[in-house]
Amino acid sequence: MTGGIEIDYDVIDDDMRRLKPERVILQLPSGMRRMALDVSERISRRYGCDVVLSGDACFGACDIPSIPHGIADAIIQVGHSEMPSVRSELPAVFLPARITLHLDTYLDSIAQSMVSPIGIIATSQHLHQIGKLREALSRRGIETLVGDGSTRTSCPGHVLGCDYSSAKSIASSVSSFLLLGGGRFHAIGARLATGKRVFILDPEMKTVYELEVDDESLLRRRHAVIEKLADSKTIGVIVSTKIGQMRMKLAEELLAEIRSAGRTGQLLLVDELLPERLREFGFDSYVSTACPRLALDDSDRFYDILGTPIELLISLDKIDWSDYRFDDWSFGWKE
Amino acid sequence: MTGGIEIDYDVIDDDMRRLKPERVILQLPSGMRRMALDVSERISRRYGCDVVLSGDACFGACDIPSIPHGIADAIIQVGHSEMPSVRSELPAVFLPARITLHLDTYLDSIAQSMVSPIGIIATSQHLHQIGKLREALSRRGIETLVGDGSTRTSCPGHVLGCDYSSAKSIASSVSSFLLLGGGRFHAIGARLATGKRVFILDPEMKTVYELEVDDESLLRRRHAVIEKLADSKTIGVIVSTKIGQMRMKLAEELLAEIRSAGRTGQLLLVDELLPERLREFGFDSYVSTACPRLALDDSDRFYDILGTPIELLISLDKIDWSDYRFDDWSFGWKE
Repeated sequence: MTGGIEIDYDVIDDDMRRLKPERVILQLPSGMRRMALDVSERISRRYGCDVVLSGDACFGACDIPSIPHGIADAIIQVGHSEMPSVRSELPAVFLPARITLHLDTYLDSIAQSMVSPIGIIATSQHLHQIGKLREALSRRGIETLVGDGSTRTSCPGHVLGCDYSSAKSIASSVSSFLLLGGGRFHAIGARLATGKRVFILDPEMKTVYELEVDDESLLRRRHAVIEKLADSKTIGVIVSTKIGQMRMKLAEELLAEIRSAGRTGQLLLVDELLPERLREFGFDSYVSTACPRLALDDSDRFYDILGTPIELLISLDKIDWSDYRFDDWSFGWKE
Repeated sequence: MTGGIEIDYDVIDDDMRRLKPERVILQLPSGMRRMALDVSERISRRYGCDVVLSGDACFGACDIPSIPHGIADAIIQVGHSEMPSVRSELPAVFLPARITLHLDTYLDSIAQSMVSPIGIIATSQHLHQIGKLREALSRRGIETLVGDGSTRTSCPGHVLGCDYSSAKSIASSVSSFLLLGGGRFHAIGARLATGKRVFILDPEMKTVYELEVDDESLLRRRHAVIEKLADSKTIGVIVSTKIGQMRMKLAEELLAEIRSAGRTGQLLLVDELLPERLREFGFDSYVSTACPRLALDDSDRFYDILGTPIELLISLDKIDWSDYRFDDWSFGWKE
């Protein structure tokens, strides 16, 4: 256990014994890279294999690298849960990292401000405590619901940056959501997907607080993006090469719409979308079919206008603004 | 012709007729991405194929992307020349971009300051004028030599960021080098590889000037890197996944040396080496077996100590400091 993060190596024993890799690629997300030497040493000793660290980004289980032939026999990705629908070239094994919280210390402040039933959602590191959280809330008289996910999520209640189906499936039956997991990123995702109030049980802040969102300001900003897309003569349609982020068919459909509207469009294939690299092309604007969160969360990082597929279609009068919704994997994702 | 850059599409006609691709990936280096729409439209019309732009970096012919299966049938890389020894998964076709200079306007200022014979070197965009440059200098009474390259260069006189063999092969026979091509990057490379004076015929500055280098300060900085490598308990050995930059065997040898010296070493596989991502691992220092120029030219961009293979070996007392030389593809590169 390092920094409150526990890794239970037993989870991958069966897979590793089956695969018997001589060399594995070890992927860690940014926040866990300080543990890289420790984790690789344990894996190397436990399974008698060499370990090579991956030094590129690792944004999630959607982001499994294509490794040149012969370098390794398997990939171990730490800190994320398998996306059942995503299949990689090399066999990939997912080693979950767990953060176990003493839930009672959080809940007394929240019990009175919540109206039953509430929906429970959690990020990968906290999935193992969903049951305990429900019990603890039940003891305080609060009813809870947990929704099923999709073929991208690993179990009920699990949310991903691109996939809030476990929240959407119960949204009409709950007063609000409680997110077991830190930070605003997933809370914003759940809010965008459901429109419900979202409370965050935040391990770093050691408290529960409600996400504050200014929906109107957000929608105003997205409306401005749509207007700029509508004015664009040249539009780049971004397609990700990441194995779990590629929506090529959707990108091709968008390209056809752009061209049939008399504009100039071009497909842009990228592994990692870097703002300064996008700017080099000098297109009037871009639309991203890669990770649905790029255009929404990272718009301040980009120098260029970056819209979602739905925003492009509104700008081309193919979808009405009143049907606006946020991009996620239910849109244009073919398995 | 755009911005003084001419592309002669005839060059790839034979290859394209043979390959008959339905869809090609088009790679352009940063400086040429403003031409992307124009180039892709011409290729699309000329060969009746779809074009998808590559939005990732393209640092040279060493940097040909692995494209997920079924997306395209071929790659066209613009602005670089083929590296004969580098073989990519998808067939790659190299479409040279040429910048043609009116050489006489440059040469009068230089004729008196040069001592025969001088070695002529050129970057990809200027290779077609090597012959004309030699004639023009000969008319002014200056003798020239052009050296053969290696299996990475495309013709005599050609220099790459990692490969100055065409300069090294004639270094002992010339007073200095004249580089046909802009910027300091390749001039510094030729200087480091040969120790000779280097003059730059710079198309942007529209003049010839001598590269000013402070060798002592450079060597002092590299000595400081070696001392920090010598003090490092944990060292990351970087290996590139880029098809023409991978020196896995060298990396494995360095790792073995690190470990036999009682330090902790780990292989780090990267596509693009980003400073902020390296920092996340928190190793004491790093050594790069990727592009030889990363550790030398980009050291200001990195927060971490980044040494070359030779510098690591000096720090481990395997090579003497008096045998210091700059990293290039003659070191540890197995074809």
